[in-house]
Amino acid sequence: MLRTVLCVIFLLRALPASANESRGHISVVLLGATGDLAKKYLWQGLFQLYRDEVSNGHSFTFHGAALTAPEPGQKMMFEVLKNLACPPDEHPTRCAVLKDQFLKLSQYYQLRTAENYTVLNREIEKLLEQEELEEAGRIFYFSVPPFAYAEIAGHVNSSCRPRPGAWLRVVLEKPFGHDLESAQQLAAELRNFFKEEEMYRVDHYLGKQAVAHILPFRDQNRQFLDPIWNRHHVERVEIVLKETVDAKGRASFYEQYGVIRDVLQNHLTEVMMYLAMELPANISSTEDVLQHKLQTFKSLQGLEKTSAVIGQYQAYTSQVQEELQKAQNYFSMTPTFAGVLIHMDSLRWEGVPFILTSGKALDERVGYIRVLFKNRAYCTQSEALRDAERSQCKAKQIIFYIGHGELNSPAVLVSRNLFRPVMPEGSWREVTDRPQLHLFGQPLSDYYVYSPVKERDAYAMLISSIYHARKDFFITTENLLASWEFWTPLLDSISHQAPRLYPGGRENQHLLDFEMLGQELSFTLAEPAEFLHTSKQTPDDYQTIQTKFRNSSLVSAWPEELVSQLASDLEAVAARAVARSGKFHLAVSGGSSPVVLFQRLAKHHYGFPWKRTHLWLVDERCVPLTDPESNFCSLHDHLLKHVRVPYFNLHPMPVRLNRRLCVEEDQGPELYAEEIAALVTNASFDLVLLGVGADGHTASLFPRSSSGLGGDQAVVLTESPIKPHQRMSLSLPFINKARQVFILILGRGKHEIITLLSRVGNEPKKWPISGVRPSSGQLVWYMDYEALLG
Amino acid sequence: MLRTVLCVIFLLRALPASANESRGHISVVLLGATGDLAKKYLWQGLFQLYRDEVSNGHSFTFHGAALTAPEPGQKMMFEVLKNLACPPDEHPTRCAVLKDQFLKLSQYYQLRTAENYTVLNREIEKLLEQEELEEAGRIFYFSVPPFAYAEIAGHVNSSCRPRPGAWLRVVLEKPFGHDLESAQQLAAELRNFFKEEEMYRVDHYLGKQAVAHILPFRDQNRQFLDPIWNRHHVERVEIVLKETVDAKGRASFYEQYGVIRDVLQNHLTEVMMYLAMELPANISSTEDVLQHKLQTFKSLQGLEKTSAVIGQYQAYTSQVQEELQKAQNYFSMTPTFAGVLIHMDSLRWEGVPFILTSGKALDERVGYIRVLFKNRAYCTQSEALRDAERSQCKAKQIIFYIGHGELNSPAVLVSRNLFRPVMPEGSWREVTDRPQLHLFGQPLSDYYVYSPVKERDAYAMLISSIYHARKDFFITTENLLASWEFWTPLLDSISHQAPRLYPGGRENQHLLDFEMLGQELSFTLAEPAEFLHTSKQTPDDYQTIQTKFRNSSLVSAWPEELVSQLASDLEAVAARAVARSGKFHLAVSGGSSPVVLFQRLAKHHYGFPWKRTHLWLVDERCVPLTDPESNFCSLHDHLLKHVRVPYFNLHPMPVRLNRRLCVEEDQGPELYAEEIAALVTNASFDLVLLGVGADGHTASLFPRSSSGLGGDQAVVLTESPIKPHQRMSLSLPFINKARQVFILILGRGKHEIITLLSRVGNEPKKWPISGVRPSSGQLVWYMDYEALLG
Repeated sequence: MLRTVLCVIFLLRALPASANESRGHISVVLLGATGDLAKKYLWQGLFQLYRDEVSNGHSFTFHGAALTAPEPGQKMMFEVLKNLACPPDEHPTRCAVLKDQFLKLSQYYQLRTAENYTVLNREIEKLLEQEELEEAGRIFYFSVPPFAYAEIAGHVNSSCRPRPGAWLRVVLEKPFGHDLESAQQLAAELRNFFKEEEMYRVDHYLGKQAVAHILPFRDQNRQFLDPIWNRHHVERVEIVLKETVDAKGRASFYEQYGVIRDVLQNHLTEVMMYLAMELPANISSTEDVLQHKLQTFKSLQGLEKTSAVIGQYQAYTSQVQEELQKAQNYFSMTPTFAGVLIHMDSLRWEGVPFILTSGKALDERVGYIRVLFKNRAYCTQSEALRDAERSQCKAKQIIFYIGHGELNSPAVLVSRNLFRPVMPEGSWREVTDRPQLHLFGQPLSDYYVYSPVKERDAYAMLISSIYHARKDFFITTENLLASWEFWTPLLDSISHQAPRLYPGGRENQHLLDFEMLGQELSFTLAEPAEFLHTSKQTPDDYQTIQTKFRNSSLVSAWPEELVSQLASDLEAVAARAVARSGKFHLAVSGGSSPVVLFQRLAKHHYGFPWKRTHLWLVDERCVPLTDPESNFCSLHDHLLKHVRVPYFNLHPMPVRLNRRLCVEEDQGPELYAEEIAALVTNASFDLVLLGVGADGHTASLFPRSSSGLGGDQAVVLTESPIKPHQRMSLSLPFINKARQVFILILGRGKHEIITLLSRVGNEPKKWPISGVRPSSGQLVWYMDYEALLG
Repeated sequence: MLRTVLCVIFLLRALPASANESRGHISVVLLGATGDLAKKYLWQGLFQLYRDEVSNGHSFTFHGAALTAPEPGQKMMFEVLKNLACPPDEHPTRCAVLKDQFLKLSQYYQLRTAENYTVLNREIEKLLEQEELEEAGRIFYFSVPPFAYAEIAGHVNSSCRPRPGAWLRVVLEKPFGHDLESAQQLAAELRNFFKEEEMYRVDHYLGKQAVAHILPFRDQNRQFLDPIWNRHHVERVEIVLKETVDAKGRASFYEQYGVIRDVLQNHLTEVMMYLAMELPANISSTEDVLQHKLQTFKSLQGLEKTSAVIGQYQAYTSQVQEELQKAQNYFSMTPTFAGVLIHMDSLRWEGVPFILTSGKALDERVGYIRVLFKNRAYCTQSEALRDAERSQCKAKQIIFYIGHGELNSPAVLVSRNLFRPVMPEGSWREVTDRPQLHLFGQPLSDYYVYSPVKERDAYAMLISSIYHARKDFFITTENLLASWEFWTPLLDSISHQAPRLYPGGRENQHLLDFEMLGQELSFTLAEPAEFLHTSKQTPDDYQTIQTKFRNSSLVSAWPEELVSQLASDLEAVAARAVARSGKFHLAVSGGSSPVVLFQRLAKHHYGFPWKRTHLWLVDERCVPLTDPESNFCSLHDHLLKHVRVPYFNLHPMPVRLNRRLCVEEDQGPELYAEEIAALVTNASFDLVLLGVGADGHTASLFPRSSSGLGGDQAVVLTESPIKPHQRMSLSLPFINKARQVFILILGRGKHEIITLLSRVGNEPKKWPISGVRPSSGQLVWYMDYEALLG
């Protein structure tokens, strides 16, 4: 049969293009050949590949495979093939001939057992021999659920590898895991069978025409974009996929994944990378594109619970109850809507908000990427007289319109006051109809608008890329894991958070609008009472408790609220000190508890008077300042790197002098005491922040310490029972001179010492912390519930 | 005559208000009683004062004065008084009675000689005695040219002071000087005659209703504004006064002043202060308002030439030629249009652009203050479905509309998606007509709009404030000098800059639109050739010269261009180093030349890779690091304060060890060399930046130095012929290990050594700089024309 077909092909070659020398044979195996995806896109894509490439030298055979028995399988498959169509611009005769050939080149296989795979391989081998074909390669397209991957991969690897010298490409469809761990596991399994270069992980979004054009657009318009594609000019980036459909009928899948895993972790993240990555000099270098993309993952700032807003359409829970046979009191926490705020730590993008958002049951179906530029112009001419086309006071934006929505086609839009973009002439054309249509706040006439000459399905494009080994349109293992590494902490942190319920469709009104407040996102409107989730039980329900401990004020709450309260109190103390004296002298401790405080201060208290703040150390380990064990180093990494404290306001302890650490003759403690005396009025810090060890130590003052628990010295060298043993510390009498002292205690591990401290008096020799009694009387204990209540 | 009048007053009192006890008599003397300002506003304002206050206990007399002889003067003055009118809401009968009284209480005086003043005083005294009135106070309104101030002030002070216990208030009209020096001089003169509290300097803008309402608005809306009136929420502030008229007929005045002195230095600056100042707890405390305003002046960042764009309407020069009888080849450089970008160094406003702009011969007459807030919302609902009133995605702004323009009345506008403002009910009312009118990009229906119930002239308001001693509506001496101190450097720096010519009116089109680029302003459109100023002669006309000096590259230009070139080259070197090694090691010298470079880098190179840059010192003076003489301190103040270099990347020289400075046993040089060796690959800096002394020294390596000119030591202690003598310095052999060396030389003072260096060979013992020959061969000399050409 094939011989006949090949003859026809050779005949055909004469028609559309000049013949090449035979470049060998390619066997395409489509696993899941009768599934939804195959029916809807993949066969059509393979047929297009065939039409595009049949005259270019390779010969093809197509092997549909599934679990179904040969006969019904074959029947189902050919039902699909019969419906294959050509685009309107293809000549009907040529189309009919090609379709006929394509059907003849296609065959169905049942692939269930190891034996089945051996048979498949034997068939391919036989064909190659019979037709005296050189083998170019084999494509295995896994259009099957991921749980089947490992088994199929094993069979392909052991039974179906091509002849030496020919390539193997296996194509995988998402989901690629559920979180970092499962993705790592899946990747490890696949690595047993395939080399990295053999695997093509599909994210079909990268095949969408507007998305696939992002890098070429950036490349072809470098002259215009180079000066403005950065934080100085970009105001924000929005990456949006809105759907009107809901999860009905797919609840069993959706309930496991939710919108972040389904859309944000993959599609929207990949798009963000195309926008944000440094542009390689040569964008056709797959290697460079992949490397630059990976680099950009490294610059992503970690997400926190407050980086996202999540929602769930109201009918979702009942759909889950029904489709998953759950009880009536089952409530799903799976988000069907999410908005996420992402920041990057790079010279180019620092401070520019990237907003990713997607949801089901929204008011319209649309996908777009919008880059909004800062408006830095002042127009002297009054509004009425401005030249709409050229005025620099109009919004400036570049939009990659993925599809649907009011435009209902892929497009690239560039505000006319920015520049006229360079677009590839053959494939994109300028569009000027519907000038009055309003998009993104402006009439279409304000933009240069380009649409593809020919709309092309994403899968057709991706299948062509697989054939051309353009790996930059696919997700490498590194890329995949980098993405999961980025998303997993957020997924974990919101897993118990109740999403805001929304009615769906137009009824949502402004319920899902959200706002950026510094690094945080929040819904703009308060949640209306009628939508309140009945099973909602978040830590918000608990109040911060204020009472007394050891005759001083006690603030207690869940850790997050506690730290947030402490940070606010600290800012208030700072503001008062600055108002009083123009300066704020703060001494901080080492250890892990202050780290969360530092992080909170760095990220949320952007009004803190850092320029007027002097930072001193309560204690230090005798290691170089740049050693990760150093308290100053920890302070630097978690706080100082992020805020602007003047150099001369930073006062690390002089633990290293004369090339050695904490040697008595070098008089480090005396030097530090002198520095304090020279700068701090009455040598009395505005605030000292302490912690407590399980043994009752505070600062680096340990039980039965020979120094620092009494005496005149402000700063002392001490010995710690744990490594590094040598320490420098403020003394207890000196700490007690402070205007205010805050003590922060977190975690169940501290409950025992807290219980004990609630009973004992002033016994600093046994429990140094018990000697903290500032002469000002201003002492506040900040303890989380676990430390306080066990 | 007065007795009769007083009787009528007592009768009248029964009509509109309850009678008070007599609070004494006030004599108002209007100097310049027949001048333009008096005719147009002042008499009307005094009449209004009389109508408002006649029933409140004080009695009044009004003394118009001018240089004109008594009879014609009297006639001229009464011509004006006859035309005084009451507002429509005043009862015509009451108005007629009051006007009649006012005319009877008014009298004309010729004030020319000292004798005239004595006579005036005698008349007032006589009246007080005759009518047995207690004197409350005297107001002298100086509506005269400023050159007459000193003489009049002398006479008033020596002859016309009120009786002990009564107050004196002298009211002064601008201009108050021409720059800081002249303003200081004028202030000093006035201080000879009057106490600060006796002087009321008028800025009539502060009497405009919308301007006068800024502080009350901020006060009454604290609950809404407190969270948003800061850099986190405000995108920009525009303070605008556009005029359609030109300077025709006033050229002799205007040519001396120009738009910045005429409008920006006073009106717009004062308005900016009301917006930007910290709000006192009690805004009716004059003292607090003035103090807070003064404080805000201190936070203004200095202006540079690049902070402004200036223009001149095309007909201006010929008007000046005509009115000032100048030759046909005379070209004025006086700006009639200016846009200025102002930044503040305060926690509240850091980074928020304040744009002040004003001009003559523009397309419309309008004054407004626009506070535009950042848009931090993402609206999930599609545009068509958004609730226009509430959507957070619409622009958010607050506008104080001063008058004229499309609204043609004072108004306060607040975007409806911000908040409904609290407005004083009696004096402002909500307006909802013309909802379709577009203002600032939005229909009027998007705003809450309030207008004054009664439009009131600024002078009427100010005269009332003088009467009530509300000094916060006037310009104190400190305030005036602070403003001139701020503006004078800009005025100086643009005094020789050719303004862009513009045709005037609508023809200006987009010619005067401007844009912010970092801290700079520039016109958006390139200057069209036909408007090019024929006599333009700016340093732009000179090209940067590139050639050779001592066989190395030489870059030469005017100082500004040279430093800008050096800064760009430096950034390029930094970017290459970071690309190569991830780090950039830069060693910088002390002295004055690098300061301009540091300033340039801090203000213009905001893409510089500071996070990856390590800063080392080429040399240091043996003083504490915080001493202003310290090179590190200078580096800190001019650069480090403004950019974000990580703490651990800063490497000051260890000149102070063991409580003493540069003692050999402390081994500072060795410690520094070790630090370099530990961090810098091959101990070879990426770039060393040097200067040259007139004696040929470089770094702190002086002629005939016993150390550092040769040998193995990387860092040495040296002796300077000038104080402070002790220095630490990189050695010549070590400098020559650097990958690149740049030498910056500025000023005529260096011409002699440069001439000499161009002839001599390598003689470091005589001229240490001649020994700078990096082994890499990468040496560039940056010299300004004066250093190079003398």
